[in-house]
Amino acid sequence: MENLTGACIIGQSGGPTAVINASAAGVIQTALKADCITRVLGAAHGIKGVLEDKLYDMSQEDPAELELLKHTPSSALGSCRYKLADPDVDDTDYKRILEIFQKYNVRYFFYNGGNDSMDTCNKISKYMQKVGYACNIMGVPKTIDNDLNGTDHCPGFASAAKYIATSVAEVWQDAHVYDTGMVTIIEIMGRHAGWLAGSAALAAVSGCAPDLVYLPETDFDMNEFLESVKAIYNKTGKCLAAVSEGIHYADGTFVSEAKTSATDGFGHAQLGGLAAMLADQVKQATGAKVRGIELSLLQRCAAHCASATDIEEAWKAGAAAVEAAVSGVTDKMVAFKCSREGGYTCETVLEPLDIVANFEKKVPREWINAAGNGVEQPFIDYVLPLIQGAANAPTEQSMPRFAHLKKVLTTEM
Amino acid sequence: MENLTGACIIGQSGGPTAVINASAAGVIQTALKADCITRVLGAAHGIKGVLEDKLYDMSQEDPAELELLKHTPSSALGSCRYKLADPDVDDTDYKRILEIFQKYNVRYFFYNGGNDSMDTCNKISKYMQKVGYACNIMGVPKTIDNDLNGTDHCPGFASAAKYIATSVAEVWQDAHVYDTGMVTIIEIMGRHAGWLAGSAALAAVSGCAPDLVYLPETDFDMNEFLESVKAIYNKTGKCLAAVSEGIHYADGTFVSEAKTSATDGFGHAQLGGLAAMLADQVKQATGAKVRGIELSLLQRCAAHCASATDIEEAWKAGAAAVEAAVSGVTDKMVAFKCSREGGYTCETVLEPLDIVANFEKKVPREWINAAGNGVEQPFIDYVLPLIQGAANAPTEQSMPRFAHLKKVLTTEM
Repeated sequence: MENLTGACIIGQSGGPTAVINASAAGVIQTALKADCITRVLGAAHGIKGVLEDKLYDMSQEDPAELELLKHTPSSALGSCRYKLADPDVDDTDYKRILEIFQKYNVRYFFYNGGNDSMDTCNKISKYMQKVGYACNIMGVPKTIDNDLNGTDHCPGFASAAKYIATSVAEVWQDAHVYDTGMVTIIEIMGRHAGWLAGSAALAAVSGCAPDLVYLPETDFDMNEFLESVKAIYNKTGKCLAAVSEGIHYADGTFVSEAKTSATDGFGHAQLGGLAAMLADQVKQATGAKVRGIELSLLQRCAAHCASATDIEEAWKAGAAAVEAAVSGVTDKMVAFKCSREGGYTCETVLEPLDIVANFEKKVPREWINAAGNGVEQPFIDYVLPLIQGAANAPTEQSMPRFAHLKKVLTTEM
Repeated sequence: MENLTGACIIGQSGGPTAVINASAAGVIQTALKADCITRVLGAAHGIKGVLEDKLYDMSQEDPAELELLKHTPSSALGSCRYKLADPDVDDTDYKRILEIFQKYNVRYFFYNGGNDSMDTCNKISKYMQKVGYACNIMGVPKTIDNDLNGTDHCPGFASAAKYIATSVAEVWQDAHVYDTGMVTIIEIMGRHAGWLAGSAALAAVSGCAPDLVYLPETDFDMNEFLESVKAIYNKTGKCLAAVSEGIHYADGTFVSEAKTSATDGFGHAQLGGLAAMLADQVKQATGAKVRGIELSLLQRCAAHCASATDIEEAWKAGAAAVEAAVSGVTDKMVAFKCSREGGYTCETVLEPLDIVANFEKKVPREWINAAGNGVEQPFIDYVLPLIQGAANAPTEQSMPRFAHLKKVLTTEM
């Protein structure tokens, strides 16, 4: 393995999380201390910042503000949803990235993101190997969706799960206040994996378990749903259902599909409005008072309710990426290997970028109940250790004190 | 003034808040210690519990669980939206209430609620005076809407305001992550008063001020709104607008009105879906990517993000009601008298129920900017002291630990 000396670039990509900046802090703080890293550059809006030569000099930042990144939600350097072409078809972007890498003598590249970002990271890594440009390239995982392959779980997931479970518990309390009937439907993020929707079931720890939980791992049947709601409602006068935005019929059609036709940069359908639509269906079928609640962006940016475990692990993932890279490792993603036997432990390991990119890790079918409308105990046992610990996020005048970065663009080569 | 000896009833009514149970704890814990109060009874679902003779014996509860009420959102005894008739037209309910009061020798009645609940409390108070039944009757204020007359502010408002401001700050972070355009519209509760919507502006403390804030105190103009959004969006690529669910056109029609025709027990229109509707309008007018977010029930039950000041004041309001009643006071509501000169102070005072009931306190016009799309500094100065202090709500396995009440129905006279 080569011991390279040169600059590093850290980029953030994809949807924000409550702790993605904790990973950035892990990379930046560790890289600033590494002897072989001559400069630490932050890419403005992920790979777009590299392509556009918009790079921040992270050594200009106040160390106290970098520390506050641990409690600052969203992507402090800016994010993007930019899909690199297949280099065999169009290598324009790759040539440009190489040009920038050469311009600043970039020998370390850290890319912090989810599935699509690991694909970007993998493509750049393979291209640099192909053209023989020595650069250690590491993926730092993040995604609230928790669907990355090769890791026990993903930084960002636990904080979103904790916010969802806490909110479901609180809404449960609210929904049970009147002695009149009430059905509540809570829509939760997660296109193809039900990790977040399933986490609603953690409200059971507070004695506020949702009655029904629907994950995208099983096919949704509108009649079964309406009959299940009706049965619970008729028996108890209440029903609280948590549904993934990605629930779909047996033919693969999203239940929410009729509501929107827009797609994002990766061709994914933009979902939303499902809770309102299901509420309408339930109202028609039962005559009950129904409320549809969409947790929307709140669930991925609620730093005030973050998991301390998640913050710490997210930071460690960033730090481990730098430590591995400066020791000569490349073409890997930092992953977590965890044990839940006799207390929770979590260590960082390295996985090849190939096996991570573009696979979506789903909730095992056996962790979902037979009826497909709830999760089993192993699911709870998996998630619960991850949400432990209060964030204790710094405040000023009792409002969140987020990091203020100067973001000084570098012009020097 | 008479020093009465007998039972007391505490009832909760109207929409829940994060701290309404802190007031209940203040009443119950103080009443359990009062010599002249022989029994402490909790009405199941407010005045309905009195009418139906469903009363819990609060002395059966574990004191540690009563203490946890301070951090348990929603109404632990159950709530109702039950409107008492004008006693001159139909006194059936009043006769029944008197019968129950006589059955249990109820000499103290505490009613914890908002505008409609203070009306209920006032009617019962006046009826008992008219029929000469000695009973000290006190209102304990609560409402996230902060629209009660005769008090500086209402318990419950500050915690909702804090949750709203914190969420707006976090969403602001999220909405500014991409370098592509984005308009975000956040719908906030408050039918006729803009205290909650205006509180979105507190996100400025975190450096995340919303661009536009619309309160129901001014008339809404769709063209002005769309032009304002467009101007900000064209200049910055982003726009974050906070809107009250109660915004209305100059003729009084709710902007959301076309979306729903349902009404609650008091004849109020049930609002909702406004954010989605405005998002659609903005999308059509600007072509921008737009997200509509409805804070929904989350904002009134987020005990995990409650204001410590609010919790403490809510408890004190309940305690003060009992202290006043046992000293012979009746027909009053506990109110807050506050000073913000040289540090915030708050003391409890007593106001006649007449002047409280059925008036809705609005945000002063001079606290709203001339254009009617933002709030002025005096508004911020008014709200900011109220949200101070972290709730430090108890948890078990990092999930909320809510109070578990036994709710033992009493059968003894």
